[in-house]
Amino acid sequence: MSGPAGTTPHASSRAAVLDVIRAAGTISRVGLVKATGFTGATISTVVRRLIDDGLVLETGRAESTGGKRRVLLQLNQSSRFAVGVHLDHAGLTYVLTNLGGSVVARMSRAGVGTDDPPVVVARIATEVDALIDGAGIDRSRILGLGFVTPGPLDQTGGMPLTPPAMRHWEHFPLDRELGAAVGLPVVLENDATAAALGEHWSGDIGGTATFAALYMGTGIGAGLMINGVTYRGAGGNAGEIGHICVDVEGPECWCGARGCTEQLAGPGAVVGAALADPELVRSAGLTSTGERPRRIADFAAITRAALRGDPRARTLLERSARYLAVAARTLANIMDLEQLVLTGPSLAIAGSIYLPVVQEELDRSFFSRATHSVPVRLSRSAATAPAIGAAALVLQSELVPLREGLRLPDNLGDAEPSGQPAVR
Amino acid sequence: MSGPAGTTPHASSRAAVLDVIRAAGTISRVGLVKATGFTGATISTVVRRLIDDGLVLETGRAESTGGKRRVLLQLNQSSRFAVGVHLDHAGLTYVLTNLGGSVVARMSRAGVGTDDPPVVVARIATEVDALIDGAGIDRSRILGLGFVTPGPLDQTGGMPLTPPAMRHWEHFPLDRELGAAVGLPVVLENDATAAALGEHWSGDIGGTATFAALYMGTGIGAGLMINGVTYRGAGGNAGEIGHICVDVEGPECWCGARGCTEQLAGPGAVVGAALADPELVRSAGLTSTGERPRRIADFAAITRAALRGDPRARTLLERSARYLAVAARTLANIMDLEQLVLTGPSLAIAGSIYLPVVQEELDRSFFSRATHSVPVRLSRSAATAPAIGAAALVLQSELVPLREGLRLPDNLGDAEPSGQPAVR
Repeated sequence: MSGPAGTTPHASSRAAVLDVIRAAGTISRVGLVKATGFTGATISTVVRRLIDDGLVLETGRAESTGGKRRVLLQLNQSSRFAVGVHLDHAGLTYVLTNLGGSVVARMSRAGVGTDDPPVVVARIATEVDALIDGAGIDRSRILGLGFVTPGPLDQTGGMPLTPPAMRHWEHFPLDRELGAAVGLPVVLENDATAAALGEHWSGDIGGTATFAALYMGTGIGAGLMINGVTYRGAGGNAGEIGHICVDVEGPECWCGARGCTEQLAGPGAVVGAALADPELVRSAGLTSTGERPRRIADFAAITRAALRGDPRARTLLERSARYLAVAARTLANIMDLEQLVLTGPSLAIAGSIYLPVVQEELDRSFFSRATHSVPVRLSRSAATAPAIGAAALVLQSELVPLREGLRLPDNLGDAEPSGQPAVR
Repeated sequence: MSGPAGTTPHASSRAAVLDVIRAAGTISRVGLVKATGFTGATISTVVRRLIDDGLVLETGRAESTGGKRRVLLQLNQSSRFAVGVHLDHAGLTYVLTNLGGSVVARMSRAGVGTDDPPVVVARIATEVDALIDGAGIDRSRILGLGFVTPGPLDQTGGMPLTPPAMRHWEHFPLDRELGAAVGLPVVLENDATAAALGEHWSGDIGGTATFAALYMGTGIGAGLMINGVTYRGAGGNAGEIGHICVDVEGPECWCGARGCTEQLAGPGAVVGAALADPELVRSAGLTSTGERPRRIADFAAITRAALRGDPRARTLLERSARYLAVAARTLANIMDLEQLVLTGPSLAIAGSIYLPVVQEELDRSFFSRATHSVPVRLSRSAATAPAIGAAALVLQSELVPLREGLRLPDNLGDAEPSGQPAVR
């Protein structure tokens, strides 16, 4: 058994104090003692170092409560930055955030298709340079780069199992190559987990909520937060609801199983069914061909057709939504969730069609519905949540303490190795 | 944000110290300082009180390592006891355990059928008296009673949603009535979560494992442990895999959903299919009738028939096992489990048939199988694990610290209210 977090003033107490200041906005040293349980002497030492390092500022005094007026502390938001990169088959999304997690620059670029990993890594390095230069940020103040891909990731810094379109990425030493190319420490994470963290940092969800981010990009996954802390599971790949079985007699999936959610509900399934319907191809203006699948573009075209009243398009999307809703119910029953957020590029497009179907399923069939409901909402940043979460991962490595019993990236601190993902 | 666990020497540090002593067997005060992160002064104070209360004993000295030989501490196993009661439709199981969780007395009694809750409560009080008297334990040394039923439980101490056979238990104030009748504090828990805790306390699983106990009694559920700590979810009812969908077109379940694991794989489904086959009724010697369902007895008879080579019995059980295996894969994919334990009364009977089917499914289709495998094993105490876990819940309320970010029963300590289950 390792000791309780933060009982001695190591780097993890520094991280804990930073996290409390971030969450509070402004707070006094006495407030920090109360919130963290550290002694006054520890808080005094930690805060002095944070101020010396330029991470925290003193900012006026609190109203008097009879005694001495207390100096307030706040994050020096622009003292440090992080880069977040989200690679999906459909495109690359970049964000640059400050220490508080606010986006100070963003850009989107076309997908990488079947390009070889080294080519993609070189391209990303160039685009990251453009992002940083465009924002006019001094490179020495950038803590690192969070890189987010479809899972699963393994402990060696690569992807041991990939969707067919990314098969050539298997076992590529992504973290090492990318780190060398951009000259920054790299944290890896899967898209859905990063999206959940992005939602958490966006502040739309209570700080200690137990919720899932149901993610749909090219694939389907879920990111899990338990009482405000990322849950990654034994191997770093929890939340793989794209590959849970919703139909034992369903079609075979690329993952080797049968009846997976992704196979039945994913954008690929919707577009595949639409392409088999010549009238819908025409009415929705679909452009995929055998050689050039344009899944997300065609998924968006089908959604637009549905929203303007095309019944064939609507039928396909609602069938997909019903499968996704069943998977959401399974997830809610296993995790006993407080809330569910729909996010990711495909739900940024079609979320308004999926939301009522998922909510209705949970209202009708969530097993513990007599105890509490599970409200579902659409993310306000569904398209960029994974990239924001990627940057937040880097900031967390400076900010968030190693909480006992849960695995967190804290390798910039003094914590023991704690599973995926690691800063390398 | 609440403070890190144990930064001040409240009741939770007492619980943390006790838990470390339990896990270690014997340990010195210096060892406790290292293991908990508390100061020497705190350990000294806490240990002195534990010795004064008779919970901990000094027991000889460790080998010299050059300096002074250190006094070793251990739990005073017989200083406190707890009662665990498991109510399943098929029967009542009672255990009495000492402070270390070892069973010192056990008994099994017939199920409660359709008896009214007040009648059942009176009967349990009498049977608990018999258990305690038979063991010759002084009642003042019994910390409380853990009571375990099919879930879900709610925050008001009753069951808001029950299987059809227990419908008359809905909203019965179980904890209050039972507490009054037996004269002990009562902790409530669902059967599967208690079974997971029972497996954890049995010591067969690593102390910080992330695992699930896949439970099959009359119903199906799962108990979840994350890094050695019980995971209950937002409302106290996580792990309801009996009611996850494995077939969107499957039959309707009593819970209101369609294609639930329990409806397709549970003992009720196996016995129901067997009763429709006159030849199997004869060859297996089934005795259920419309008025008197004897599900577990008949499930056991079908299992015996299968084990002596009856192909009709084997076909039914293997079909059930395949559905259970698919649910196990879904659970493993969502939680990214390290291990899976098969437990509960029905798997105590038929586990040898289910185990290879579940293991094969995970070996073939667990999504992150390239990262790690998920070994499946059969519990050594499948029939009594829920009752042992029920008693452990009571002991935990004395032993286990409130770990930040996870909900634990700690209401005997100074911790803040932390969700289900509560000692009332």
